[in-house]
Amino acid sequence: MSSNHVVTFNQARRVAIFGGTHGNEMSGVTLVNLWMGNGGEIRRKGGRDQALHHQPQGGGEVLPIRGHGPEPGIYRRESQFNPLFNPSAPGGKDLPYEVQRAQEINRMFGPKGSADAYDVIFDLHNTTSNMGCTLILESSKDHFNLQMMSYIKKAIAPASCPVLLNEDPRLKYATVRSVAKHSVGLEVGPQPQGVLRSNIFEAMRIILKHALDFIELFNEGVEFPPCTVDVFKVSERMDYPRDANGNIIAMVHPNLQDCDWEPLTPGDPMFQTFDGKTIPYEGVGAVYPTFINEAAYYEKQQAFVTTRREALAANAIRKV
Amino acid sequence: MSSNHVVTFNQARRVAIFGGTHGNEMSGVTLVNLWMGNGGEIRRKGGRDQALHHQPQGGGEVLPIRGHGPEPGIYRRESQFNPLFNPSAPGGKDLPYEVQRAQEINRMFGPKGSADAYDVIFDLHNTTSNMGCTLILESSKDHFNLQMMSYIKKAIAPASCPVLLNEDPRLKYATVRSVAKHSVGLEVGPQPQGVLRSNIFEAMRIILKHALDFIELFNEGVEFPPCTVDVFKVSERMDYPRDANGNIIAMVHPNLQDCDWEPLTPGDPMFQTFDGKTIPYEGVGAVYPTFINEAAYYEKQQAFVTTRREALAANAIRKV
Repeated sequence: MSSNHVVTFNQARRVAIFGGTHGNEMSGVTLVNLWMGNGGEIRRKGGRDQALHHQPQGGGEVLPIRGHGPEPGIYRRESQFNPLFNPSAPGGKDLPYEVQRAQEINRMFGPKGSADAYDVIFDLHNTTSNMGCTLILESSKDHFNLQMMSYIKKAIAPASCPVLLNEDPRLKYATVRSVAKHSVGLEVGPQPQGVLRSNIFEAMRIILKHALDFIELFNEGVEFPPCTVDVFKVSERMDYPRDANGNIIAMVHPNLQDCDWEPLTPGDPMFQTFDGKTIPYEGVGAVYPTFINEAAYYEKQQAFVTTRREALAANAIRKV
Repeated sequence: MSSNHVVTFNQARRVAIFGGTHGNEMSGVTLVNLWMGNGGEIRRKGGRDQALHHQPQGGGEVLPIRGHGPEPGIYRRESQFNPLFNPSAPGGKDLPYEVQRAQEINRMFGPKGSADAYDVIFDLHNTTSNMGCTLILESSKDHFNLQMMSYIKKAIAPASCPVLLNEDPRLKYATVRSVAKHSVGLEVGPQPQGVLRSNIFEAMRIILKHALDFIELFNEGVEFPPCTVDVFKVSERMDYPRDANGNIIAMVHPNLQDCDWEPLTPGDPMFQTFDGKTIPYEGVGAVYPTFINEAAYYEKQQAFVTTRREALAANAIRKV
């Protein structure tokens, strides 16, 4: 597929915004609650004269969806939800709640891979890491998403909006948002679990505004020309140093803490043991760590992920 | 009691350090785990030639105690633990785990108010608020604790170490540490729940070092002269603005967020509603907010507490 080729997609008539996949990530929970009460802010025009607004059946819609995760404020292990999502698994009332809920989402917003699936799902997350506003892309071939992310990056400049590409099947987790034709993860931080910070709330809100503006323009027939999108491609998961019993024996080094997206080169301090020794990074070449010291990833034995920078070419897109 | 009067106390032979009253506050959990493996760092001399070291029975001791709260990493509501602590309540296997554990602590480290009670209990906590290293004092008449806090403040200067005085029965919660003759709460932040940050870990460790040094000097017979201790006395709990259904409709204002211990004067921005309106502080005179936007206090309907500054006089102290 050459970069001169214009890729066409159907109108994005059905858009969902998930807040509360993790119920203690309060920005998304709060925004979606707000929009369920009053959807004016996420209402957009679509097609020619047709209003794209919040209506669960028919027409165009932007649908805020609350918490297919647990009750807000209650911590639930990551492993109890996302990784268990397998839309093709057999159903049944004996399955864990989260799996039943994932299957229900697949029925409501998928089925995954089908023509009936939702066009776009935004999945709102917070992180305790200093990641700013990060867009998560699950396929480097999704020209619709690449164009959307390019649009958002330009719209919020000079603020930055890193794109994290995670398409390596060894490293990625199944996500419920992936039932849609185009799924976008949004991670905004730093924010502790269970806390709502105004700066993080507003940052997430602005990203969503630009994303919905993009969809509206696309639906109105705007053609987006070819472009290049700088992304950070997930390379490797790094665990905390551990003793023979599996207990953590070191912390993220103060020089690395909060330095998401900044280069880490061989020899740079990476961990600090409880007795004060520095453990340096010993990989090959510069990497760009992110998800540094994320609370939810201790249980995944992940202190951070390394990424490498790439520039992805996005073809021109327009609606069919 | 005049300030010239020297207050005498018995040697502080039995000292306990609680880490993990809240299992997702990782600094205390980690320090206590470390010291249970190797107590050298918290070992101190006591009496004349007698080693004060970690030995559960007899002699002097500094005893690290892990998690009378839940499993580390698992969130448990505050209300399920501390406020239920009532050492005089009837026992029984039908009581919630946390109440049984509190009664067990009272048997092990109390009984509260008795001569057999532990001399000092340190209770290690983290907060998501920007409170730095905060010492929590439960009585303005506890000259031993006042002298200890004065010692710590001088030892860590020019770094600061605010003392939060909470002795108002309408505002304080029962704490398990209060079974000891002298109980000290330590809140160090900001740190998200479930995260271990090296800067917060080291800050807590240093406070404990100075506290144990003070106890060692006291036990060796040093007399501490009268002094004055600046404290922030809890004044009022402030809830988030809510609608008629009890739902939160505003966030801590960005001008107030992270500004623990800084003056808030009438007219200053306090909250920001989700539709962008500023709600100012309308109290009387300057207050000093703290526990601003603490994750664990949403359920207590508390956005922050206000405090007022006071200078407390501590009498001279020495051992009997």
